[in-house]
Amino acid sequence: MLQGHQTWVFRNRPAIIATAAVGGPFEAEGPLAKDFDKLHGDLWLGQDSYEKAEKKLLEEACTTAIEKAGLQKSDVQFFLSGDLMNQIISSSFTARTLAVPFIGLFGACSSSMESLALGSLIVDSKAGNYVLCGTSSHNATAEKQFRYPTEYGSQKPPTAQWTVTGAGAALLGREGEGPKVMAATVGRVVDMGISDPFSMGSAMAPAAVDTITAHFRDLRISPREYDLIATGDLGKVGFKIAGDLLKKHGLEIPEDIFTDCGILIYSEEQPVLAGGSGCGCSATVTYGHILNRMRKGELKKVLIVATGALLSPLSYQQKESIPCIAHAVSIEYIS
Amino acid sequence: MLQGHQTWVFRNRPAIIATAAVGGPFEAEGPLAKDFDKLHGDLWLGQDSYEKAEKKLLEEACTTAIEKAGLQKSDVQFFLSGDLMNQIISSSFTARTLAVPFIGLFGACSSSMESLALGSLIVDSKAGNYVLCGTSSHNATAEKQFRYPTEYGSQKPPTAQWTVTGAGAALLGREGEGPKVMAATVGRVVDMGISDPFSMGSAMAPAAVDTITAHFRDLRISPREYDLIATGDLGKVGFKIAGDLLKKHGLEIPEDIFTDCGILIYSEEQPVLAGGSGCGCSATVTYGHILNRMRKGELKKVLIVATGALLSPLSYQQKESIPCIAHAVSIEYIS
Repeated sequence: MLQGHQTWVFRNRPAIIATAAVGGPFEAEGPLAKDFDKLHGDLWLGQDSYEKAEKKLLEEACTTAIEKAGLQKSDVQFFLSGDLMNQIISSSFTARTLAVPFIGLFGACSSSMESLALGSLIVDSKAGNYVLCGTSSHNATAEKQFRYPTEYGSQKPPTAQWTVTGAGAALLGREGEGPKVMAATVGRVVDMGISDPFSMGSAMAPAAVDTITAHFRDLRISPREYDLIATGDLGKVGFKIAGDLLKKHGLEIPEDIFTDCGILIYSEEQPVLAGGSGCGCSATVTYGHILNRMRKGELKKVLIVATGALLSPLSYQQKESIPCIAHAVSIEYIS
Repeated sequence: MLQGHQTWVFRNRPAIIATAAVGGPFEAEGPLAKDFDKLHGDLWLGQDSYEKAEKKLLEEACTTAIEKAGLQKSDVQFFLSGDLMNQIISSSFTARTLAVPFIGLFGACSSSMESLALGSLIVDSKAGNYVLCGTSSHNATAEKQFRYPTEYGSQKPPTAQWTVTGAGAALLGREGEGPKVMAATVGRVVDMGISDPFSMGSAMAPAAVDTITAHFRDLRISPREYDLIATGDLGKVGFKIAGDLLKKHGLEIPEDIFTDCGILIYSEEQPVLAGGSGCGCSATVTYGHILNRMRKGELKKVLIVATGALLSPLSYQQKESIPCIAHAVSIEYIS
């Protein structure tokens, strides 16, 4: 199971039997709109707070994934989820709605692959038959909590990113057609001393590089093993840094297979500065767009490297730098 | 591995090869003081913020457990931890110090047994050789974040609890003498509509009962299987409610084997209202006092049911009730 220092190889190949991606108005205007199961034109989703709207996004992603698998809530044994909100309320309140055993996680924007890695471990080790992995973010809740309420209309530097309003969920099962989870590399916390919450991509890039190099070292494979390697939400600035750092480490990933979910999700015309971010970024792009490409036969094997900035507004106020992490999961379409 | 609906049985019996408990000044005055590895007379631990003091508590618990096992940081493959702070900064910053692959969790005060359950799954399924599980809380950081800064000197009702200043860590290994993790029951979110953050024990009691009944149903055993069943931090009020609810469910736990870590940790003379709470409560009492009793031969088999209130100040302000959860881990001393 454990290979090298920090990589799990799943011998029983847990199947991703269904996924769902739900998005908001900005995501509906982006180039991946057709890959979402549901898109909301209203940031409020008919709720009386943005936080309740975020919870609704996650609930919808979870129930949609369960429905697509032809299952009932009661078939799901464990729900693994985390999000950016203080005390992960989006996940906890969704777990209340689902009423299934719940394992709460926090890995900031790496929560998508943290939950998929742990969920796969549960299925692989026969500790569960059906395991649901989810995560969410909402532009207005994240901006309010980490920076300024969006209603203030405050300006941002070009290194800043745009938090995705969206939720993604994957339902894992022991058996099934389609994409299989092959391996997962659990990341270490890396902190290069960056303390600017408007430059998360730069802060997270070294963590992505640390996990990517660990993945290839542990598995003794080369990047060409994959048809696509996608980082979570480095955005344009962080993605460029990650590419440069990888070269310095002697691990060059060919340009044609290397991308970032935060770059893919929005178009050049959208006012999103350096690109998308948030737990919902890698979750919706992976569980919508990338897995759809796999199902169409366009991609056979991919590596998703979700990155997370583990700061809190309080740690920032206390002049701490931003510890970052990345978790990588390898998915292969085996027909 | 999976037995019944939500219980994992660990066939390879992961060993708790070392544990550590670190406490603060209130814990030093309590009846379990001698079971702590380290006690601090100063709430600040020489740091310039309470949050940094909490991080130091967790760092000390982790490094002490590693030292007691005769290992180095680099021997530890995975660190699983969560705490009450927004974005679990105590855990994330400790993970930065430890520099080992990190799995961030959030289960509020249930984080102690959530991490022990998942850590045991990793060791049991051969996904790791040495896995460190930790958690922490600090009276002044938790009060400031969830209720009022302690400096305000605000009054509290008798149902309120006293957040433990302490951190606990357990180092798991594949082989080893002493206590073994036998099984874990992952809890569901239970919400009975209580919304008063000064009455957490009452809110959490139904979640404890839900997990306890699931544990005995899944494993088809009776409470007398255990020499001790300890809830995490229900306090006097919640513990009484849990006992009453269990009787209603037809599951009576004999008084001589049923207790609560939040009641054990402080004496009647200490001004702690309904008792102790916080992630550090079940962690220090279990990893200090209870495991010491097992090592002395006073207890052979115990069940720890750590309870967590998954609220955030914001969910409370938005008039939400408090979703609660409990995770149970069964530990047996096999010599």
